[in-house]
Amino acid sequence: MPRPYSSGLMMRDPSEPVATGRNRRLAHLLGIEGLDRGTITELLTSSDRFVDCNRSEDKKLGTLRGRTLINLFFENSTRTRTSFELAGKRLGADVINMSVGSSSIKKGETLIDTAMTLNAMHPDVLVVRHASSGSVHLLAEKVNCSVINAGDGTHEHPTQALLDALTIRRNLERGLEGLVVAICGDIAHSRVARSNIHLLAIMGARVRVVAPPTLVPAGLDRLGIEIYHDMTRGLAGADIVMMLRLQTERMSAGLVPSLREYYRFYGLTYEKLEYAKPNALIMHPGPMNRGVEIDSEVADDIDRSVIRQQVEMGVAVRMACLTALAGSG
Amino acid sequence: MPRPYSSGLMMRDPSEPVATGRNRRLAHLLGIEGLDRGTITELLTSSDRFVDCNRSEDKKLGTLRGRTLINLFFENSTRTRTSFELAGKRLGADVINMSVGSSSIKKGETLIDTAMTLNAMHPDVLVVRHASSGSVHLLAEKVNCSVINAGDGTHEHPTQALLDALTIRRNLERGLEGLVVAICGDIAHSRVARSNIHLLAIMGARVRVVAPPTLVPAGLDRLGIEIYHDMTRGLAGADIVMMLRLQTERMSAGLVPSLREYYRFYGLTYEKLEYAKPNALIMHPGPMNRGVEIDSEVADDIDRSVIRQQVEMGVAVRMACLTALAGSG
Amino acid sequence: MPRPYSSGLMMRDPSEPVATGRNRRLAHLLGIEGLDRGTITELLTSSDRFVDCNRSEDKKLGTLRGRTLINLFFENSTRTRTSFELAGKRLGADVINMSVGSSSIKKGETLIDTAMTLNAMHPDVLVVRHASSGSVHLLAEKVNCSVINAGDGTHEHPTQALLDALTIRRNLERGLEGLVVAICGDIAHSRVARSNIHLLAIMGARVRVVAPPTLVPAGLDRLGIEIYHDMTRGLAGADIVMMLRLQTERMSAGLVPSLREYYRFYGLTYEKLEYAKPNALIMHPGPMNRGVEIDSEVADDIDRSVIRQQVEMGVAVRMACLTALAGSG
Repeated sequence: MPRPYSSGLMMRDPSEPVATGRNRRLAHLLGIEGLDRGTITELLTSSDRFVDCNRSEDKKLGTLRGRTLINLFFENSTRTRTSFELAGKRLGADVINMSVGSSSIKKGETLIDTAMTLNAMHPDVLVVRHASSGSVHLLAEKVNCSVINAGDGTHEHPTQALLDALTIRRNLERGLEGLVVAICGDIAHSRVARSNIHLLAIMGARVRVVAPPTLVPAGLDRLGIEIYHDMTRGLAGADIVMMLRLQTERMSAGLVPSLREYYRFYGLTYEKLEYAKPNALIMHPGPMNRGVEIDSEVADDIDRSVIRQQVEMGVAVRMACLTALAGSG
Repeated sequence: MPRPYSSGLMMRDPSEPVATGRNRRLAHLLGIEGLDRGTITELLTSSDRFVDCNRSEDKKLGTLRGRTLINLFFENSTRTRTSFELAGKRLGADVINMSVGSSSIKKGETLIDTAMTLNAMHPDVLVVRHASSGSVHLLAEKVNCSVINAGDGTHEHPTQALLDALTIRRNLERGLEGLVVAICGDIAHSRVARSNIHLLAIMGARVRVVAPPTLVPAGLDRLGIEIYHDMTRGLAGADIVMMLRLQTERMSAGLVPSLREYYRFYGLTYEKLEYAKPNALIMHPGPMNRGVEIDSEVADDIDRSVIRQQVEMGVAVRMACLTALAGSG
Repeated sequence: MPRPYSSGLMMRDPSEPVATGRNRRLAHLLGIEGLDRGTITELLTSSDRFVDCNRSEDKKLGTLRGRTLINLFFENSTRTRTSFELAGKRLGADVINMSVGSSSIKKGETLIDTAMTLNAMHPDVLVVRHASSGSVHLLAEKVNCSVINAGDGTHEHPTQALLDALTIRRNLERGLEGLVVAICGDIAHSRVARSNIHLLAIMGARVRVVAPPTLVPAGLDRLGIEIYHDMTRGLAGADIVMMLRLQTERMSAGLVPSLREYYRFYGLTYEKLEYAKPNALIMHPGPMNRGVEIDSEVADDIDRSVIRQQVEMGVAVRMACLTALAGSG
């Protein structure tokens, strides 16, 4: 597993504790790798407060009034962009969306020039998604504002891992320590898997991956992760079953023989779910391919599926991250 | 005329009167069919207040502060989307636009999954446009928030009918009761026509449709509507002439021989307008095909065309609907 | 050089001084041509205040609270649109973006119908970009609200000239009077060049253009501008070197032989820069074609390049213009 950068989160002053005052807040949130357990716990605890806010009638806070958030998306993602946009607006920030696929890139401008142009407009936070692993970190080195990585290539997607952790924590009183988590599907190409693997390891969970050999990246065993190619064995005794979206491009690349075959061996069905713990939580980052990586009824299981809750937690987690980065402390 | 759903508007508590308190406000606005005269009159009267607001220098109200409005458009419509966006923002709500043609749908997500994902983010109102008749009603059954139908296939477009009624009411002191309204053009495929037919019938107007036989849906006579295939007869003595946009796709489908032919027989000209009452109002929901369904000079007639006023009333009507659905009563 | 319109800026009451009270504020900002030195100076002085605001933590002002700004872009430009959007939001206005390429135009609606539709929604300011020279002026004659030209064809782009002037003024204490400014590149097709030429002439600067003969419009000498076809001569003794973006379409039109040839003769390199004054400022409106009209290192020159500052000044200048047009005086 490549480690393009040594640290997922950079501090304004590395000698100071996190997020406890104006001069000590986080500079960037670029990945989960490199974060410590305290920082993660603090972000999750802060998120709980925003869950309550989002469930109330008046969802408007003034925390980021006068701040500017720019969503800079080089890849389409209405789901993640909407979540950040809502988070920013509910905190009172001015939010600007920039979808770049169709504009400056066509005009031949470089990633860094696009970023520096926005930087000159004095945003407080740039939320960036880009198809190239490492690009968001590169960008963060150039700008004066805080940067949140909203997904860079197959590298990291830290707010997804945080929202997954928040969902687990709110459903299982015992917390993440010692939990058995099975992450199933296209591990090799998934920034969601990568960020979750880091977070779960940091928080003391036991991580397994379950995937066909073609979709497991090399070197994963070094991280202390158990690798399975069989769902029934991989799910045995799991507390959490995290399914990943199968990009249909994988099929044309020859990594998966057919969607039907994939579903038969790796799609989550009630039969396979039998092997996990009785109350195992079912998770999926969305958008789902029903009937490919997950059976439609399993996805909607009232007792065990927390897929909608993940989306809800997403807004709260992003509010916590934005506040940690741009709040006045 | 198909009746996909029995009721256009659903009450939170059907035993209670409309919009008179927090627990009695409307749940959804899915169509005009099923509304009663009192509800419509109440919405129109409430709209009048917002017309004044929109004409003043300070157009900002705090009515929906802390509420979230999501515009979920599966079909392109900058005009309607902009009208709802302005309405929401002027009421103080946080407004998010989601144009779905290009994003999650491509990723194979179902309509309901897209809606449930947004629902999990706790919007207060979802404004939805979709190409399939009935889809918005289906969606409304699944979500916790209020839903406004901004046009579903050839079914309904209730805020358009309300803004048309408001425009008429403000121009003709005598109100809608007993007015002769001629709706002209592509009745068969028009949700605007359908919503207007329902509203005008409820309010006691006499509705005529004027269209070539290929563009009149079966069963229309059952609703007590007079059907004409000749403009001069259909307009005779009309108080209101409502033109509909001709979708050019109708021509390729063989329903209309040519635009020239269509204009000759069904385009609104001063010659044909002679048959209506001297001060008959000219209406069109926009965007217009000048020289197809309406002569360019007629469209701009200073004394009789209220086409720009319709747009103005649109923002006010949407403010009234949003307030009825999401205001705190 | 064509003069499609006699005046760049129209007053609500031509007999009154500018921007000194509610009834005397500007009606439109359509171009620099026709503005006087006092108006320009006033806008630049007002901009300085907004530069400070944008650099502070709380960047929110209530100046335009309750006002509506619509960005109506018939040409793609995330950079300019974002700058206006930020300016409007930081002033407290409700901002609506309408990108028209993909919507109503496809539906066959005319420019004026699109504008009149928006006008009926009571915006206070329409910011318009359009590919046709003169179209924005035409539109301004029809609507009730203020209009800012954000670029019309090869005609004018007044806020770009104002932000360039602000950048110069803040870097050179002596002001614009008597400065030698060399504008280099595709003069013929550049609205940026045109607006700058007008502004610099009004403010008493000495303007030179440097370009291949194919890219110089006829009649330029009448405006008292010196024309050069050789960079070393054109830059000799210049205080300011303004590079223009080369539209790659120019090459396919046969106006430029090749990008390499263009760079060799007209690209700004350190060698050519030697001929200008030692501290000459390097400017570019962006987005840059590095290695075409400007050397990459020159573009990033820490001491002399003010290209990022231009972007920063852009937001401030737009805040000043919006306030002059829509503020309550």
